[in-house]
Amino acid sequence: MASIFSRIISGEIPCYKVGEDEKNFAFLDINPVAPGHVLVVPKKEVDYLFDLDTDDYVSLQLFAAKVAKAIAKVMPCKRVGEAVIGLDVPHAHIHLIPINSEADMNFFKEKKQLSEAEMQHIADAIGAEL
Amino acid sequence: MASIFSRIISGEIPCYKVGEDEKNFAFLDINPVAPGHVLVVPKKEVDYLFDLDTDDYVSLQLFAAKVAKAIAKVMPCKRVGEAVIGLDVPHAHIHLIPINSEADMNFFKEKKQLSEAEMQHIADAIGAEL
Repeated sequence: MASIFSRIISGEIPCYKVGEDEKNFAFLDINPVAPGHVLVVPKKEVDYLFDLDTDDYVSLQLFAAKVAKAIAKVMPCKRVGEAVIGLDVPHAHIHLIPINSEADMNFFKEKKQLSEAEMQHIADAIGAEL
Repeated sequence: MASIFSRIISGEIPCYKVGEDEKNFAFLDINPVAPGHVLVVPKKEVDYLFDLDTDDYVSLQLFAAKVAKAIAKVMPCKRVGEAVIGLDVPHAHIHLIPINSEADMNFFKEKKQLSEAEMQHIADAIGAEL
C-alpha cells in the first residue's frame, strides 16, 4: 500500500503544499513543532533516508537546503533546524523547523495548533520564496 | 578564534575520533544522547549548515550517510537519526544518533555517562566500519 506521504504527493490526501521538484516534495507538517515546520520527502517511496541511492539522496538534501532557505526568509527565526527520525511513517522524510532556541526542536512538547488559514498562508509564503 | 570543533579537528583538543575524509571529520559527542552519538562536521569553519557552498554541503551529507551506515553496523538500533540544531557551537555540525524509539532523539533528557574505555571502544568500532 502507498505510504501516507505517497498519497499526499499524488493528491489523494490534501496537504499544505510548499513546493516540489522532479524528485522531491515539501509540505507543512500537520502537527508542527513550530509554525513553518515543513516535511521534505523524496517522491520515490523509500523507507529509510540512508537507503536512498546516492543521486536521490543528494537531490533530497539539496532540495531540503533550498526549502530551509525559503523558510528562513519567511519565518522569524535564528536558524532552520533539521531532524530525521523516521520511525513513524515508512517513507523517508526530513523535518525542517524554524528555531530560536534548542527548545524549539523538542518533538516531545505539545504541538502547535494553527488555523487552516494560518497554515495555508505559511505554505504559500514559503512556496513563493522557493 | 578557532571554534571548538576546529580545535578538535587540529588535534589541539582531544576527541574520540571516528574518522575523516578530505573535507569532513567525525567524532563522538562528549555528552551523548545515546551511546554511539556522533558529530559530523566540515573541516571548513562555517557557522550554519545551509551556508556551506554546494560542493561542501553535498560532501558533508554524503560523509554523514557513510558514518550513519557505520554506526548502524556497530550499535544495536532500529535507525540512525539525524539532527541539526546548531545554536550552541558556531561551526556547522550534524548529530547522528542510534535510535530505537522517537524518545531516543530527545536532546532534553539527561545525557548518557559512558566511561573513557566505552567511548574509545565505540569510536574505534564505528571507525573500523567506515
